[in-house]
Amino acid sequence: MEAEIIAVGTELLLGDILNTNAQFLSRELAALGITVHFQTVVGDNPARLESVVRQARGRSDLLVFSGGLGPTEDDLTKQTVARAFGDTLRFDEAELEKIRAFFTAWGRTMPENNKKQAMVPTHGRKIPNANGTAPGMIFEDQAAPGKYAVLLPGPPKELQPMFLNSVKPWLAAMSDSVLHSVTLRVTGVGESHLESRIGHLLENANPTAAVYAKTAEVVIRITAKAASEDEARRMCSDYAKHFYDILGDCVYAMDADSLEEVVVKELAARGLTVATAESCTGGMLSQRITAVPGASEVFAYGACTYANDIKEKMLGVRHETLEAYGAVSPETAAEMARGVREAAGADLGVGVTGIAGPGGGTPEKPVGLVYLAACNADTVYVQKLVITGRTREVVRLSSTQHALEMVRRLALGLPQPACTAFPAEEPAHLMQKGTPARDV
Amino acid sequence: MEAEIIAVGTELLLGDILNTNAQFLSRELAALGITVHFQTVVGDNPARLESVVRQARGRSDLLVFSGGLGPTEDDLTKQTVARAFGDTLRFDEAELEKIRAFFTAWGRTMPENNKKQAMVPTHGRKIPNANGTAPGMIFEDQAAPGKYAVLLPGPPKELQPMFLNSVKPWLAAMSDSVLHSVTLRVTGVGESHLESRIGHLLENANPTAAVYAKTAEVVIRITAKAASEDEARRMCSDYAKHFYDILGDCVYAMDADSLEEVVVKELAARGLTVATAESCTGGMLSQRITAVPGASEVFAYGACTYANDIKEKMLGVRHETLEAYGAVSPETAAEMARGVREAAGADLGVGVTGIAGPGGGTPEKPVGLVYLAACNADTVYVQKLVITGRTREVVRLSSTQHALEMVRRLALGLPQPACTAFPAEEPAHLMQKGTPARDV
Repeated sequence: MEAEIIAVGTELLLGDILNTNAQFLSRELAALGITVHFQTVVGDNPARLESVVRQARGRSDLLVFSGGLGPTEDDLTKQTVARAFGDTLRFDEAELEKIRAFFTAWGRTMPENNKKQAMVPTHGRKIPNANGTAPGMIFEDQAAPGKYAVLLPGPPKELQPMFLNSVKPWLAAMSDSVLHSVTLRVTGVGESHLESRIGHLLENANPTAAVYAKTAEVVIRITAKAASEDEARRMCSDYAKHFYDILGDCVYAMDADSLEEVVVKELAARGLTVATAESCTGGMLSQRITAVPGASEVFAYGACTYANDIKEKMLGVRHETLEAYGAVSPETAAEMARGVREAAGADLGVGVTGIAGPGGGTPEKPVGLVYLAACNADTVYVQKLVITGRTREVVRLSSTQHALEMVRRLALGLPQPACTAFPAEEPAHLMQKGTPARDV
Repeated sequence: MEAEIIAVGTELLLGDILNTNAQFLSRELAALGITVHFQTVVGDNPARLESVVRQARGRSDLLVFSGGLGPTEDDLTKQTVARAFGDTLRFDEAELEKIRAFFTAWGRTMPENNKKQAMVPTHGRKIPNANGTAPGMIFEDQAAPGKYAVLLPGPPKELQPMFLNSVKPWLAAMSDSVLHSVTLRVTGVGESHLESRIGHLLENANPTAAVYAKTAEVVIRITAKAASEDEARRMCSDYAKHFYDILGDCVYAMDADSLEEVVVKELAARGLTVATAESCTGGMLSQRITAVPGASEVFAYGACTYANDIKEKMLGVRHETLEAYGAVSPETAAEMARGVREAAGADLGVGVTGIAGPGGGTPEKPVGLVYLAACNADTVYVQKLVITGRTREVVRLSSTQHALEMVRRLALGLPQPACTAFPAEEPAHLMQKGTPARDV
């Protein structure tokens, strides 16, 4: 099946937004074994939109659209596609009720122009939208059956679940071979080092394996093509073993969405709770942990302590420690972790202190210097990061990623290869200044 | 001048990489007053690339390409464009020397196939590449002078400086008008309601105005075309006044990146500090505030208090309040705001408590019910949100957005239209159960 992706929206042509939908859809279609030959972006202009639709219909079997399903006059995708595919639109009372209910739930009355969103294909089918007012829809070409147009709303938060829950199963059912993918998530190994260790595994024809670098982690995607779902699954998991053999416990998950999801799951499985004390990450660590549904079972307390006096008052960091070593030091990180663990009565404590930039750096303590500490009742582990040449956002994200990895290792009882360990009761001032934790 | 952008590369069609070049080029061309009508992505396939080039040549004056200038057999952009534009390629000895020097500088010898990169247009011109081996190039249509194709290398680190240093000045010199844009950010008014109030302002020819919906805010982009930058600027700011007249203080900024940026700026300008107490948003509010460089001047303390006992211990929320009204109540939100303000010795306090979902909802307190409180020394403002049918992520993001808006209004001394106000010293139990704050 040959496909193309068409995004509709003048804001894309102005460069106001990035076309992430095209990447998402391309990747998903590729995983289904559907070849994408073109991606097009066209504005909210009737004549140009029509020319794009007619050309695409002439050369591809599957057209996947994003955007142009809104309530305004500019939003023309469905009228244009209906016309090209020999279909019409009908008013759907049930859909209108859903849209109205959506507004009522927000304590608002539905504006008249939203009625337009209740127009659905006469011959084609509508796709429910769990996260917005615009339903998606599928048109089949009335003059050339087997040729389809799938219309999805523009916001990724509506488009992605709609594709995954409704469109993907429908496309998979039409195909005669099945693709299955698994993703391995790896942290604690740099991308270039990784490639020299696993490069030979990336040359395989089936399953294929590809590496994607993210902030402070790498994703390996393994995809197998087979006659059945079961066989494709087995091929993937067999091939995954080769990666586990080489990378060991640096592979933190198969098919999880994120490190925080794994951390919450592992803590919950062991009945452990964690408390966090953050300076430069400003709550990003607690925000990531609590983004996982059910995090309330494992998350005790998060303190975002920027100022020194707040570190003393809320976490019991000692005045002398801050005086002697400064707020950005292994000693302060360790006392933050111990202090927040104690204040919250949690099993594990985490401390993060550093200089996220762009200001605040000095020759001794440059922007990107971050100390992390994680502790249980017995031991405090301290890690030093030096994240150079990156934005504030990346320094913060990378710091929280490494902190989460420390919590995962603590929860699972794994070694902490990048850290220095101290007995938990050891006073912080015994840590030798000038013998910082290992660089990563 | 009408333009289109064509990215060449199968990796884009597979979804392996995001087409950030299209956004960069679109934005830059818009700023030059050049209208982009299409963005296309096509793979490294001779026939499809040729069809895309011929179609674009037929409908646009300026074609900007990214990618396909590499040394491999797959890289076909320049041969294909040369043919369509009636030009040929010639071998350029000086360019080869540069490429060879590039390799030498890296301590390598140049592979034979890189010689291909030294082929440049016979009639057109080459563009130097300061950051890579592939020169860019400009072809003029030999059959239709004044029609151009600009070819740029795919890696953004090569494409961006090449565009800014060589292509942009060349395009600016050809243009007789200048475009300028400003963005207004609006919160507290829904997209469709907004449109019924300002719809008539979106019909204008010059300046133009367009509306983009984000989570719990709306962006209005005004763009003016004029003979000079100064005049375009003045036209934009004159036109912006119409929006301010209608939307008043719901317009929270012109040309700022985000609400948190405005909040930090306004707090800093008044020497005010803020402390946050979060339950369902789990640190997202403190994370957003501290994402702004310099936030340390205004951010005192953030407490992420999930469990009831932690709310009591860290924030002084009274046991009786939690017993009588529950953790998700206007009373608890108010006590959280007051408690964290006092604990941190801050000027302003914020409390957020709610049910972000997907679990934890009840008929009386459904998923998406969130209470926000913001206070200064005198008054606590409480707001109730009901965010239905949204993901955990959107509930949290929307909650922090409304909380930030409350802080902005508190800092500026603006009214809090969606809130109920209580004297700060009034005991929480005097708030009548069953008379919650107004819905938004």
